Amino acid sequence: MQSRTDNELLEFLMNSSVAEISEHIEDIHPADVLDVIEKVEEDKLYIILSKLPHWMVAEVIGEAEEEEQMKLLSLFSELNQGKILNEMSSDDLADLLGTITPIEANKFIEKLTSKEDRDDVKELLTYDPETAGGLMATEFISIMDNKTVQDTFTYLQDAAPDAESVYYLYVLDEREVLKGVLSLRDLVTATFETKIKDIMSENVISIPADMDQEEVANKFEKYGFMNMPVVDEQGVMLGVITVDDIIDVLREEDTEDIHRLAGIDEGENVAGGTIASIKSRLPWLCVNLLTAILASSVVSLFENTISQVVVLATFMPIVAGMGGNAGTQTLTLVVRGIALGQLTYENSKKVLFKEIRVGMINGASIGCGVALLAWLWSGNPILGLVIGCAMLLNMTAATLAGFLVPMTLKKLKIDPALASSVFVTTVTDICGFFFFLGLATVFIEFLV
Amino acid sequence: MQSRTDNELLEFLMNSSVAEISEHIEDIHPADVLDVIEKVEEDKLYIILSKLPHWMVAEVIGEAEEEEQMKLLSLFSELNQGKILNEMSSDDLADLLGTITPIEANKFIEKLTSKEDRDDVKELLTYDPETAGGLMATEFISIMDNKTVQDTFTYLQDAAPDAESVYYLYVLDEREVLKGVLSLRDLVTATFETKIKDIMSENVISIPADMDQEEVANKFEKYGFMNMPVVDEQGVMLGVITVDDIIDVLREEDTEDIHRLAGIDEGENVAGGTIASIKSRLPWLCVNLLTAILASSVVSLFENTISQVVVLATFMPIVAGMGGNAGTQTLTLVVRGIALGQLTYENSKKVLFKEIRVGMINGASIGCGVALLAWLWSGNPILGLVIGCAMLLNMTAATLAGFLVPMTLKKLKIDPALASSVFVTTVTDICGFFFFLGLATVFIEFLV
Repeated sequence: MQSRTDNELLEFLMNSSVAEISEHIEDIHPADVLDVIEKVEEDKLYIILSKLPHWMVAEVIGEAEEEEQMKLLSLFSELNQGKILNEMSSDDLADLLGTITPIEANKFIEKLTSKEDRDDVKELLTYDPETAGGLMATEFISIMDNKTVQDTFTYLQDAAPDAESVYYLYVLDEREVLKGVLSLRDLVTATFETKIKDIMSENVISIPADMDQEEVANKFEKYGFMNMPVVDEQGVMLGVITVDDIIDVLREEDTEDIHRLAGIDEGENVAGGTIASIKSRLPWLCVNLLTAILASSVVSLFENTISQVVVLATFMPIVAGMGGNAGTQTLTLVVRGIALGQLTYENSKKVLFKEIRVGMINGASIGCGVALLAWLWSGNPILGLVIGCAMLLNMTAATLAGFLVPMTLKKLKIDPALASSVFVTTVTDICGFFFFLGLATVFIEFLV
Repeated sequence: MQSRTDNELLEFLMNSSVAEISEHIEDIHPADVLDVIEKVEEDKLYIILSKLPHWMVAEVIGEAEEEEQMKLLSLFSELNQGKILNEMSSDDLADLLGTITPIEANKFIEKLTSKEDRDDVKELLTYDPETAGGLMATEFISIMDNKTVQDTFTYLQDAAPDAESVYYLYVLDEREVLKGVLSLRDLVTATFETKIKDIMSENVISIPADMDQEEVANKFEKYGFMNMPVVDEQGVMLGVITVDDIIDVLREEDTEDIHRLAGIDEGENVAGGTIASIKSRLPWLCVNLLTAILASSVVSLFENTISQVVVLATFMPIVAGMGGNAGTQTLTLVVRGIALGQLTYENSKKVLFKEIRVGMINGASIGCGVALLAWLWSGNPILGLVIGCAMLLNMTAATLAGFLVPMTLKKLKIDPALASSVFVTTVTDICGFFFFLGLATVFIEFLV
């Protein structure tokens, strides 16, 4: 029942003849082949791939990471490259050719034997890869609404092997405008003489070609569809997006948010190289350094106060640290809430007031604890009062910043996760030191 | 082409008769109904729901958040509750009944008319909701391998309306052991007299019932399947998981990681209440406070040094802040790398050495900049040397902690995202202050 392990598959592919492999090819999944070839040395790579049929190589390349795809294709001769490209689906082909220059891409496009395929790929390459147009494939099954179920089965038995997915059939009019949709489920559960127009659903939920991929993913999540049709402004059907591409989009978008919140490039891979990591992180550290210097200059304004009451230096990390934590909590919740569609302009005022309340209550609780600690530690109740008030003020400012920074970025149409942490930490550091050391300066006569 | 807006749908549902709604019901998606009823007042809620057929109410409840499901169901009379429950799919029903006590759940189960449904739901409730068993539905289509394509169509035209999904047909033997799989695509593209056993794929990739949902999601992501079968240890087929449930799992798991990295509960909702937010965040702030106090006690050891060279207090935020940033970068990359399966035990050593290199190079770069700044600011090159060395050491320690903390938690079978930030920040704060103020104390005669 269990599928082969990677090692068993490797052994099978290395030791079997082309004929043996081709006999069992239907039982081999391209994702497993990819796992196997990612682990073998360069010389075995070509031995394995050259034994596989071209359509399987096309699927393996389609499954591979973008940076690997060209490398795999370039193992083959010019002639075989053409055969492999002809087996690839239009969306995989557009993704592959999107990684190289347009001039190089054109050379590959010329290898496609059908003019329709060449035109489709050229058109797909005109869309932004992060929009619906960039995700869609042009292979889909369209039917006319005056056909019967039996006609449609006969048609499918010819046409289907070429289509990206046969689970939905799209009903178009003569101008290719999308009129309705029919799931394969509707088709197989209807009797053969039923007319298509009587079982199609007319209220099709379609996606405009320029919709951002994150919004596309939210539509799939909401409706639970396996496929969704993509249309232009006139409603003409252009292509279809399948849910397996959406899973990749979701993971990509979530990784982007997580990475950006931590100040690393969205594309950095944990298994990548040293130079790539430094390029990804050093710029962010430099930006953070500037804000840390800003915080330090606030402290330097109060050096005179600190030299009189050196215990203030001891409590500085608590004030700044707790403010940073409270700000990060709100920031993260807001960034994720925006991504999941839970935070909209409609409920943003309610959320803002909630965050202020939470900031004040958490600030007061933590402030009281630290005030007590400072009093006991230093024996001076006024020091306790100063630090307690500073924490209350800073943690309220922190939640405010944690809310306002990503919401402002969103309003400016910038990714709310991008650079938010830097701004929020700057606010909490500067406010924290300013409130704490400022109050201490005001009450200096009670502290020395 | 565009579907109705929420407001148009609300108006239609409020102003139309039951007969009118039922005529257009196929064009209404339960997810849209849910959007509409989430925005209306309580009194309109029942007016709308009571006009819908029971199967639609069942689907709307299935789409709702877990905490809303029981509230919606309880709007109906006992009799209608039974009718709605009978229309729900087994996985939605198990999710719904999993939110209440077993005794209450049993009362609802008794309302199911078919003994098979009652047994199915009781069995589903025995699985951990975060495993494959907790995700699966028991409605699937199974066939015997000696049937033809035509037999199967005839059978589907009867059985399909009851199944969770008809896109895959599972081929079982007489002991209900899974023997093969057939996509609806294979079926419709074959001629009617073809035998099922000649077109089924024998190498079925199946999921054990106790597999964790995150691992299940990774399988779907890898293979791009629409459905996957769930089996017990003997290979007996128990149910089927559909990809739309997987999208929810992925979002849930990613939210959990993002929230935990920031020190908030995985379940906190940005649109939730003040009390819930405080409960989610205050405990984490208290844990952070303890570690901040630890950092402060390190500073307090060096109060004597600071009182002699008060400019050290000015530079403290830079040392601690930059260490925290470098640690968070590595930590986030490692946590995400584990979640995406990019970081395994096999490549962990390579990644560790890369992180140390990155920490040292970034530490040296930032350290040089800060050393220069401190020299210019204070006019003392030795202060520059002290802070530069402290930053190099601390940022290397930070990347080390950012790698080791989540890897250790993973080894201990604890979620690597949980509490990792607290540990890493503790290390960077303590090390940072210790290196910086310690070195300053050693070189004190050159600093005063």
